[in-house]
Amino acid sequence: MFKEPLIQVHQRIKPYIHHTPVLTSTLINTIAAANLYFKCENFQKMGAFKMRGATNAIMQLSDEQKRRGVVTHSSGNFAQALSLAAQSLEVPAYIVMPKTAPQVKKNAVKDYGGEIIECEPTLEAREQTAMKLERTKGASFIHPSNDLNVILGQATAAKELLEKLPNLDYIFTPVGGGGLIAGTAIAAKHFGKHCKVIGGEPMEADDAYRSLKSGKIQTNSTTNTIADGLKTQLGSINFPIIQQGVAQIIRVEEHEIKYAMRLIWERMKIICEPSSAVALAALIKEKEAFKGQNIGVIISGGNVDLSQLPF
Amino acid sequence: MFKEPLIQVHQRIKPYIHHTPVLTSTLINTIAAANLYFKCENFQKMGAFKMRGATNAIMQLSDEQKRRGVVTHSSGNFAQALSLAAQSLEVPAYIVMPKTAPQVKKNAVKDYGGEIIECEPTLEAREQTAMKLERTKGASFIHPSNDLNVILGQATAAKELLEKLPNLDYIFTPVGGGGLIAGTAIAAKHFGKHCKVIGGEPMEADDAYRSLKSGKIQTNSTTNTIADGLKTQLGSINFPIIQQGVAQIIRVEEHEIKYAMRLIWERMKIICEPSSAVALAALIKEKEAFKGQNIGVIISGGNVDLSQLPF
Repeated sequence: MFKEPLIQVHQRIKPYIHHTPVLTSTLINTIAAANLYFKCENFQKMGAFKMRGATNAIMQLSDEQKRRGVVTHSSGNFAQALSLAAQSLEVPAYIVMPKTAPQVKKNAVKDYGGEIIECEPTLEAREQTAMKLERTKGASFIHPSNDLNVILGQATAAKELLEKLPNLDYIFTPVGGGGLIAGTAIAAKHFGKHCKVIGGEPMEADDAYRSLKSGKIQTNSTTNTIADGLKTQLGSINFPIIQQGVAQIIRVEEHEIKYAMRLIWERMKIICEPSSAVALAALIKEKEAFKGQNIGVIISGGNVDLSQLPF
Repeated sequence: MFKEPLIQVHQRIKPYIHHTPVLTSTLINTIAAANLYFKCENFQKMGAFKMRGATNAIMQLSDEQKRRGVVTHSSGNFAQALSLAAQSLEVPAYIVMPKTAPQVKKNAVKDYGGEIIECEPTLEAREQTAMKLERTKGASFIHPSNDLNVILGQATAAKELLEKLPNLDYIFTPVGGGGLIAGTAIAAKHFGKHCKVIGGEPMEADDAYRSLKSGKIQTNSTTNTIADGLKTQLGSINFPIIQQGVAQIIRVEEHEIKYAMRLIWERMKIICEPSSAVALAALIKEKEAFKGQNIGVIISGGNVDLSQLPF
């Protein structure tokens, strides 16, 4: 049911995003015992796939809504994505960030033209501050992952991958808020031939794994993982899509994430976030089940603080 | 005079090397005030352009010579390149390394099937050990940079770049032993329209700069630079080619190398060696002279020890 909308979304956002390359590594293929195709969203504008969803969400607004601007709460990649997408589309962007957020993240948002509104570092303060901006500025709230327009934007990464490699047996993505994997499930259904979608998730923030098992959305009590982009949890809009379209979630330990991240850095010579390495870590962990298959792996982003590496 | 040979060399080595991609960065273009095209030899097999020259040098040997094998002395990328090229071509490779070389470099050579022969860490011991292997094994000595077949192999990187972008005004490369920049000069002459070649060199190992000034090969008294691939010096075969075909050498300070390296890592999300960053550092240093020009920059390699980063 999303095939036509997805084609339109892709067409609409194309001028504002990069068509990212697909890389391969003979050595990683040997280690994984399969044929891997890495979709490099770390090379996407602002360094992550989030640019796709943010751009689409803004483009769906009316002219009047665009004039009044958009608001989100995020201290991660979506804050930067919404800022840059808004800048490209000449729309004001208000970004609610906890005042404890690292200066480097605040600077990145400012560099992309976003206006930062600081709040106390609690979920309640974040939501209230965002709601106040909706009221006072008339800004439209855009959720980082639990929004159908965002999900369809993220789906275009897997759509590009499947247009290049229609015979993929699987696509692996990391699972955080659920926007990327839900979009990937939609793309796989409509643009794959028999392509299954599998998620990688840190053991330390395994809400998606437990949500799929129990059939209802679970929360994370702790999120003690290096994969800082994956601490967020599923939402009411992406969860049913994930239930329907994701074959399996594989959980990985911290040392498995670091090993996969180092493999990508050392062997592919590209910079990815710890969160991105979770997809490869999941595949390597269960590689016996995927021997000889053609597998897409979405490298979700490349925004890391080089002064704080786990190596 | 090298046009036909270079076409043949490229044809010959193609099955054994990667045709590496060319990447761009809007932000780095803004910083450099020019249009930059990065030829990513960090994505080359074994992680550096040296694979091209090593492959070509081995392929030029007779069957009898191939049977007896090749020998070089190097503890850097050429050691790995000759090992892997020899392995691909089923030729024995003897690599003379100082016994003080880091274990990680020895392991890389072994992984590619090279046989390591250790020697004392002096130039004399290296040369004597290599000569002994020529005598006892009948192996052919291949110099890492001062060898015409190696130079023509390295030239294929710039040839690929110019075939994709025939209107480049400049190509910047780092200068170490001189093989890459000499090859680039040959390629620019025959495949560019008006393309000038410019070298970047660390102030701390500026033998090429001083050699060009004085008209004869100069040595480095100290080589205290982070760009460890550029400590070697020009040779009798590549120096005349460089004299004829290189427009300028720009020297850069250590902090300028680190700044350029960090830009490439953070903004392009790719891993390059400090040596590779020297080319961009040189351009940024003298950017007033290159405003608005179309400039190729060769990212020479991506083999770094992630545990020892300068960030």
